[in-house]
Amino acid sequence: MTALSAPKVLVVAGTHGNERNAPWLLEHWRAQPESLNRHGLELVLALGNPAAHTENRRYIARDLNRSFEPGLLADASCQQQEVRQARELLARFGLEGQEPCAVALDLHSTTSAMGNSLVVYGRRPADLALAAGIQAALGLPIYLHEADGAQTGFLVERWPCGLVIEVGPVPQGVLQPQICRQTQLALEATLQVIAEAARGVLRLPRQLVVHRHLASLDLPRQGDGSPGACLHPDRQGRNWQPLTPGEPIYLDASGAALPYQPPAGLEGQVVWPVFINEAAYGEKGIALSLTRRECWPVEAPWLAALQALAAKGPR
Amino acid sequence: MTALSAPKVLVVAGTHGNERNAPWLLEHWRAQPESLNRHGLELVLALGNPAAHTENRRYIARDLNRSFEPGLLADASCQQQEVRQARELLARFGLEGQEPCAVALDLHSTTSAMGNSLVVYGRRPADLALAAGIQAALGLPIYLHEADGAQTGFLVERWPCGLVIEVGPVPQGVLQPQICRQTQLALEATLQVIAEAARGVLRLPRQLVVHRHLASLDLPRQGDGSPGACLHPDRQGRNWQPLTPGEPIYLDASGAALPYQPPAGLEGQVVWPVFINEAAYGEKGIALSLTRRECWPVEAPWLAALQALAAKGPR
Repeated sequence: MTALSAPKVLVVAGTHGNERNAPWLLEHWRAQPESLNRHGLELVLALGNPAAHTENRRYIARDLNRSFEPGLLADASCQQQEVRQARELLARFGLEGQEPCAVALDLHSTTSAMGNSLVVYGRRPADLALAAGIQAALGLPIYLHEADGAQTGFLVERWPCGLVIEVGPVPQGVLQPQICRQTQLALEATLQVIAEAARGVLRLPRQLVVHRHLASLDLPRQGDGSPGACLHPDRQGRNWQPLTPGEPIYLDASGAALPYQPPAGLEGQVVWPVFINEAAYGEKGIALSLTRRECWPVEAPWLAALQALAAKGPR
Repeated sequence: MTALSAPKVLVVAGTHGNERNAPWLLEHWRAQPESLNRHGLELVLALGNPAAHTENRRYIARDLNRSFEPGLLADASCQQQEVRQARELLARFGLEGQEPCAVALDLHSTTSAMGNSLVVYGRRPADLALAAGIQAALGLPIYLHEADGAQTGFLVERWPCGLVIEVGPVPQGVLQPQICRQTQLALEATLQVIAEAARGVLRLPRQLVVHRHLASLDLPRQGDGSPGACLHPDRQGRNWQPLTPGEPIYLDASGAALPYQPPAGLEGQVVWPVFINEAAYGEKGIALSLTRRECWPVEAPWLAALQALAAKGPR
């Protein structure tokens, strides 16, 4: 098996129009293809939401990365900008599209101090194999998003395999070379794992460390919906670090610290927050998300699934 | 002369709708007036751009803090949202308004690492006295904005005295207690200086250190208007620090450093950049502004001007 038989890989930048770093890289990779190590894979580069990118806004009508719900995509009466764009991306690059891709990699940035990290949606074996391979190479932390009925319709879920590379902190609308460098590093490691899977030479580690989604917390709100407190300064920037019940989590306007009180079902448990103070999540009512750090043994079927996909993908 | 005779002071937060920290303070000061040390002054608290604040956008139709041009305000054919809002603020709180204020303090935040700082527009003696008094108390750096035909119509210019308190870095749309704390500190120092001027007991330092505006630089642009380079990582966050011709200023997409080449009129000179990588200035074509650090002797008429204004202002 050679790299020639590998499937096409879709790389999407600018799914959110005010995240500027990945689109800047994308332009550069188009102008100078040798500046991205593709590890022999055939890539398709796409700007996710060109209309929002032009306006430097996250989205025009609705969040594109919540618009890939099958029911929404199938509802012909819905003609919102981002739903049309989701259909267009699938028609062009989906597995049944004009230029079919087997894997989708969606490049994001965040105002939250997530560092260089991965987001995986659910537990598809090929995704877990890919994430495990990247984690073995770079040590990136992984947010495993699942069982969250309030946040659905993510882009990568509509491809057979895919994940989000999420880098921060960087303000919306700002280009920073450090953010670009981390994004490129994570993408090249991802492509290397896919290429190795296609060649049948990928070795996975024994275990995968995930931060599994449990719940999201909003800021305390006042009667009119405005925040009654902000994140406690001790918590700012401390993604991936344990939070124990009773530790300060918010600071109210009088300067009083409010302790973390676990939501129902998580009483007495230590949690690991992620996406602390992501600007765009305010409107979603998310000040931070709570996860549990778990070490999972890597299972043989994961590698098999990724290899099968990488080997037999569309040429 | 007692504090009772002091003029009203207008404090504006949320002139830009995606700057969330000062509006959050404002709400708190309204709910708990004792949480702000007014130094005996009568304050009027105003949310600058409520429509943009509701939408968490910098502005609706145009930048409110570029909408206070006398010609624009007088042009009845112009009914843009922010021009109407500027007229409304003047009708309510201008010197000829319903609730006249003699001093306007406009609270801003920035994605740029400006720290806690002041922006002064032009060289009005009372503004310079106020800035000198604050600098003596807290040591804040001052960006003196003048002679820039591309950026005009600032809010505080329409009041007899006023300045901007500018705190960063913080992403747009994000609340951070450190930013709130610095804002409150600067505001309370400002109010103390005004109160002392009203009581005739203000003492000013011998000199005022300003960073005087010289020019603004855009990112290098490509034919289609997109950036051809980003800020060099060595320059990121280094506001108020000298930049010498030939030092790296941009990084192009291939990773090559581009040296600082002074614009016409500044050849061979050291400059001090400010507002490096402010997200909202991208659309204005400003990647950073260049200033010269100057030490000015404090002049007796400055204090006299501030004292006269503070003492005889509207009650």
